[in-house]
Amino acid sequence: MSATDVDRGTVELGEFRFECGETIQELEIAYEAYGEFTGDNAVLICHALTGSQNVASYNTPGTAGQARAWWGDIVGPGKAIDTTEYYVVCANVPGSCYGSSGPSSTNPETGEPWGSAFPPVTIGDWTRAQRRLLDHLGVGRLRLIIGGSVGGMNVLEWAKQFPDDAELIAPIAAADKLDPQCLGLDAIARRAIRSDPNWNGGDYYGSGDDDASPPRQGLAIARQIGHLMYLSKASMDRKFGRRSAGRDSGIEGSDALFPPDAAAAFFPYREVESYLDYNAEQFTDRFDANSYLYLTRAMDDYDLAEGHGTVDRAVSAFEGEVLLLSFTGDWHFTVEQSEHLAEAFRAVDIPVAHHVVDSDHGHDAFLVEPENVAPPVGDFLNSGIAGRAITDTAETDDDVDSGNTDFAPVHTSLFSG
Amino acid sequence: MSATDVDRGTVELGEFRFECGETIQELEIAYEAYGEFTGDNAVLICHALTGSQNVASYNTPGTAGQARAWWGDIVGPGKAIDTTEYYVVCANVPGSCYGSSGPSSTNPETGEPWGSAFPPVTIGDWTRAQRRLLDHLGVGRLRLIIGGSVGGMNVLEWAKQFPDDAELIAPIAAADKLDPQCLGLDAIARRAIRSDPNWNGGDYYGSGDDDASPPRQGLAIARQIGHLMYLSKASMDRKFGRRSAGRDSGIEGSDALFPPDAAAAFFPYREVESYLDYNAEQFTDRFDANSYLYLTRAMDDYDLAEGHGTVDRAVSAFEGEVLLLSFTGDWHFTVEQSEHLAEAFRAVDIPVAHHVVDSDHGHDAFLVEPENVAPPVGDFLNSGIAGRAITDTAETDDDVDSGNTDFAPVHTSLFSG
Repeated sequence: MSATDVDRGTVELGEFRFECGETIQELEIAYEAYGEFTGDNAVLICHALTGSQNVASYNTPGTAGQARAWWGDIVGPGKAIDTTEYYVVCANVPGSCYGSSGPSSTNPETGEPWGSAFPPVTIGDWTRAQRRLLDHLGVGRLRLIIGGSVGGMNVLEWAKQFPDDAELIAPIAAADKLDPQCLGLDAIARRAIRSDPNWNGGDYYGSGDDDASPPRQGLAIARQIGHLMYLSKASMDRKFGRRSAGRDSGIEGSDALFPPDAAAAFFPYREVESYLDYNAEQFTDRFDANSYLYLTRAMDDYDLAEGHGTVDRAVSAFEGEVLLLSFTGDWHFTVEQSEHLAEAFRAVDIPVAHHVVDSDHGHDAFLVEPENVAPPVGDFLNSGIAGRAITDTAETDDDVDSGNTDFAPVHTSLFSG
Repeated sequence: MSATDVDRGTVELGEFRFECGETIQELEIAYEAYGEFTGDNAVLICHALTGSQNVASYNTPGTAGQARAWWGDIVGPGKAIDTTEYYVVCANVPGSCYGSSGPSSTNPETGEPWGSAFPPVTIGDWTRAQRRLLDHLGVGRLRLIIGGSVGGMNVLEWAKQFPDDAELIAPIAAADKLDPQCLGLDAIARRAIRSDPNWNGGDYYGSGDDDASPPRQGLAIARQIGHLMYLSKASMDRKFGRRSAGRDSGIEGSDALFPPDAAAAFFPYREVESYLDYNAEQFTDRFDANSYLYLTRAMDDYDLAEGHGTVDRAVSAFEGEVLLLSFTGDWHFTVEQSEHLAEAFRAVDIPVAHHVVDSDHGHDAFLVEPENVAPPVGDFLNSGIAGRAITDTAETDDDVDSGNTDFAPVHTSLFSG
């Protein structure tokens, strides 16, 4: 296989017992792998909430938006994670909808979609499923495990469950657990899906002569709430301001997802609304509403310290080095939360660098600022935390304490007082 | 009338032409008035989005939650706005649902609720309706016009439309316009209401033998989104953390607003969810879904500069003094936005003080921290901006510029950086 080819497949990994206690007979995991495995050059990439295994290659059927080649500027030949040197694997997590077992996949015992009968999944389940896939692919110890957002939680779970399995880990824009503001927003998003009459308790896939009628309005609202969490005030000011979308409220018309209100004709249809509507509509074409319920449940439930009491004890057995990346404009996974992780690793003498990127893009920054993400990630992969492009908050602690920097304590003080 | 009595009523103010161009034949305005009018002691209070005219007195039928005696710690005998000295008026805005004309009130021409036939309203309309009410009550020039949140926008509109009519104005936790992040969240909330099949294009009030079946799920989701905007990360951490609500997911059961998902039994029902669900359920009992659409439209549309090009020109004719109050933990109406207003007043030499309260309560602070709101408000009412309890950011500009204070530029830099 050449360095620019992709190994794309779905493997059957046999019986799988979920953390909730339920078992399915055949766990299917869809994955992509780039580059050639040489024994010590494996990289596992963990995707974000609505991402897919299609981390780098184009022309993939069935994916779109942030699920398609979502890190194409970071991963590929000559990129920071260079597929001519490294063997890169990304797997769709169980519960998702890009080919791995999940509520929209077929239950082999019934021949119908699982729907609401699919077991609840956790990030611990994702991690054990990825371990099983790597065993299948013949990969033992990895050079690097990396991922952003809830994918960063997935990375942290690897350090906790399989502390000997990676030389390097890089949780990006991550946290040991979500804060209650995000828990609240995710809960509202789930209520929007469950309130859509088409959701029907989770069984809306149709069968036989019944057409599927998925809960598109509920999923669109859920996605719009999520979308707001990924942007910052500053990026929204720059992208949209208060500008009118400069066209009739066509998308609010009869073909659109949402019925118009009587006042819609008098008030402008703003660019921010147009953007949210357009993206939500695209999203409902590519993502499954039940998967959104299952995966946000997994994210909300995650608590790295669980079973160990504290975060530092949970990661204390990890044998490698850690790069934490965070972004100053991110209010979903804050700089302060990454700093909290850094302190935990430092407390148990694990080599760690917390590299803070000054950015007003919000949580999206890890996807849309490859120019700031690639250098520290590439250096880390090749040289560990000694990499030249990597900075560490520990070196600037005085500044952080005095509130004179652009780092977490300043930017997150809005929320944390 | 004694100083502790309340004059509670609904007046018919005749034909009213809305800014949108539509006219209704009879504008009804529900109001409450406290204290005795002596000619120069009138105070107009402007309520927030879902507030009511019941600013201070208890035992009011038909209101609850933040609509009942919502500023009872600020307004009353011996309080900062002392009803033994001042004549205090608060009117329910047109479009709302506490007795003034709005989508849920009766259209006299049909004998049925207006529903979707009610004209779109603006904050300019609210202001002209209040002016008409005060004329009816015999009040010309006022000592003070004060209000929080969108009520603060209402106050600003007074200074623009009727610049000679008040000696003092106090917009609290306000802004000249909403930022696109808040516009986006409000738009999502409206989509949730309009997606509820019970909304039925805005006509759900029932008539004759038809029972009303309001869009409770949609309104509940809209309110939950709003609720999140009123709290800060810090206040949510303190109130809820990630704690389980410590009881079965009863509220998610068959009696509840939202149908449960299959995974609900495995994952905890958290305090933050319980709080949002409980409050949303209460809210749907007291507030009308169409009013939520109409009033958020008015708020989103508001732009103080409109018609004048800039904010300073819009307020330049105002003849009195201005107190701006803002709260460091507020991400709905930020300290920075109030500072922007302060700069506009300073630019046209209008006496202004911008008093910043260090608080992690979020936008709710103007309702839940009377101990911090009452002193500057009381001093302002009695002595103008010379009041001793009033501070001004202009006095601490050096600190603000260097980023060494708890004021706006630090706290809001998370979003605006």
